[in-house]
Amino acid sequence: MESEFRWPVRVYYEDTDHGGVVYYANYLKFMERARTEWLRAKGLEQDTLINEQGVIFAVRSVQVDYLKPARFNQSLSVTAEVMETGKASMTFKQRVILTTTDASGGEDDGEVLCRGQIKVACLDSRSLKPKAIPASIREEIFSDG
Amino acid sequence: MESEFRWPVRVYYEDTDHGGVVYYANYLKFMERARTEWLRAKGLEQDTLINEQGVIFAVRSVQVDYLKPARFNQSLSVTAEVMETGKASMTFKQRVILTTTDASGGEDDGEVLCRGQIKVACLDSRSLKPKAIPASIREEIFSDG
Amino acid sequence: MESEFRWPVRVYYEDTDHGGVVYYANYLKFMERARTEWLRAKGLEQDTLINEQGVIFAVRSVQVDYLKPARFNQSLSVTAEVMETGKASMTFKQRVILTTTDASGGEDDGEVLCRGQIKVACLDSRSLKPKAIPASIREEIFSDG
Amino acid sequence: MESEFRWPVRVYYEDTDHGGVVYYANYLKFMERARTEWLRAKGLEQDTLINEQGVIFAVRSVQVDYLKPARFNQSLSVTAEVMETGKASMTFKQRVILTTTDASGGEDDGEVLCRGQIKVACLDSRSLKPKAIPASIREEIFSDG
Repeated sequence: MESEFRWPVRVYYEDTDHGGVVYYANYLKFMERARTEWLRAKGLEQDTLINEQGVIFAVRSVQVDYLKPARFNQSLSVTAEVMETGKASMTFKQRVILTTTDASGGEDDGEVLCRGQIKVACLDSRSLKPKAIPASIREEIFSDG
Repeated sequence: MESEFRWPVRVYYEDTDHGGVVYYANYLKFMERARTEWLRAKGLEQDTLINEQGVIFAVRSVQVDYLKPARFNQSLSVTAEVMETGKASMTFKQRVILTTTDASGGEDDGEVLCRGQIKVACLDSRSLKPKAIPASIREEIFSDG
Repeated sequence: MESEFRWPVRVYYEDTDHGGVVYYANYLKFMERARTEWLRAKGLEQDTLINEQGVIFAVRSVQVDYLKPARFNQSLSVTAEVMETGKASMTFKQRVILTTTDASGGEDDGEVLCRGQIKVACLDSRSLKPKAIPASIREEIFSDG
Repeated sequence: MESEFRWPVRVYYEDTDHGGVVYYANYLKFMERARTEWLRAKGLEQDTLINEQGVIFAVRSVQVDYLKPARFNQSLSVTAEVMETGKASMTFKQRVILTTTDASGGEDDGEVLCRGQIKVACLDSRSLKPKAIPASIREEIFSDG
């Protein structure tokens, strides 16, 4: 079973808008950083996937619920978890969580600010046509590590 | 009945990524430009709404299907159409369409590249709590103009 | 002599930050849109330049003075003017100007908000090495049109 | 004497453009992240500065030389060092450096990809007028820590 991966994200000026909160499109950047780091934690570098395996992952659909706004300078955690896999696609369940610091200085989970389902397709990196996820990649992704 | 609004968007370097196509989060920017211009076409300026009416619109959820990639330098049309209205929210149906030029130099619709449903809530601009869409705004929005 | 080119830019949420003003990096996006449209007005499409002429323009240096902040929903004009040309480079002088509406509804120049000098190099689109600006491009650029 | 601060930045899809390299405006984002983290390392949180000290830092000018492009998935280091201080301003010298991994797995400096001088003004957070850097902040900034 796939355990949940987390990646820290700090909210900088670049991420916020005139409303004082993170601009809605930017949560998709945060979620992609977490998916990229999840792949990297599995030993998969996307530039290598493109150049050596000839595959590229492309987002097919997103569904995002914005529950509470993230604000300037906050420290967030972004999760990435595969909830469904097809022959040539994967669907991620992702959350953006406010990180809070507890009395002893440790980090604690705060509220879930944003929740998403992101469907990613595996494409041939040249033709950009759908392509089955290569077995070697599939193995890395679904190892327990 | 609400007719469909369209706003032209050109794809610049800033919008594309390493894959040579528009970065997936950036379609949300394009869609927001179209919603903003749709409001402006109704006579509603968002800074005035904030300062004089005390309301701000915030995105509650998005659902986007990426059908075909938009590429560098392409000319796009982004539609905005209200498909559902609540007391304090509106749901937009939006499409990003490739603009093509026909033989006589006129602009024609090309393929739909991306489709979205964007739910927007009306909030009190100070407390950021949900607030009924003021009658005066509702009137402008649902006029035929 | 090169006359000054202008391109309209509207400030959307995506452009602003938590300080309520346009984020400093985003003026560079506005300036690039104006340079792109200046080229297009000369009949030069950058994707064609890459694919047919094998050249790509890349920014070598920028120098920007931020005089006054641009704000959400403002209407701006961005200028582009070549102030110096080398064999394989061009230096642009650009300004971001606040557009104001005069009594009769016409558009007037407001204050200069931001001023920049942008040096752009001509590169071979494959090797990314400097390459002399092709004569055909040079002609278009320095025509009076 | 001020020692050089470094902050790691990974290049994600969001940072790159159609040319396969980091989009020129995005280096300014990287540099701002490093300045923000430099302040944080000094014990200064910008939201606290705004709310409790009534000051905000705003960029007045930038001068950036792009030497070599950063590419997708690269690991970078961004430096921040104060090279000049005025009563109400500071000028930073910043570099974006390619991080390389040496034989023993340690990280080594690679080439300097980009160099900048960023002048930042201290403003009253309400009026946005220039304001002398408060003594308490000045002390933190120029401590050796």
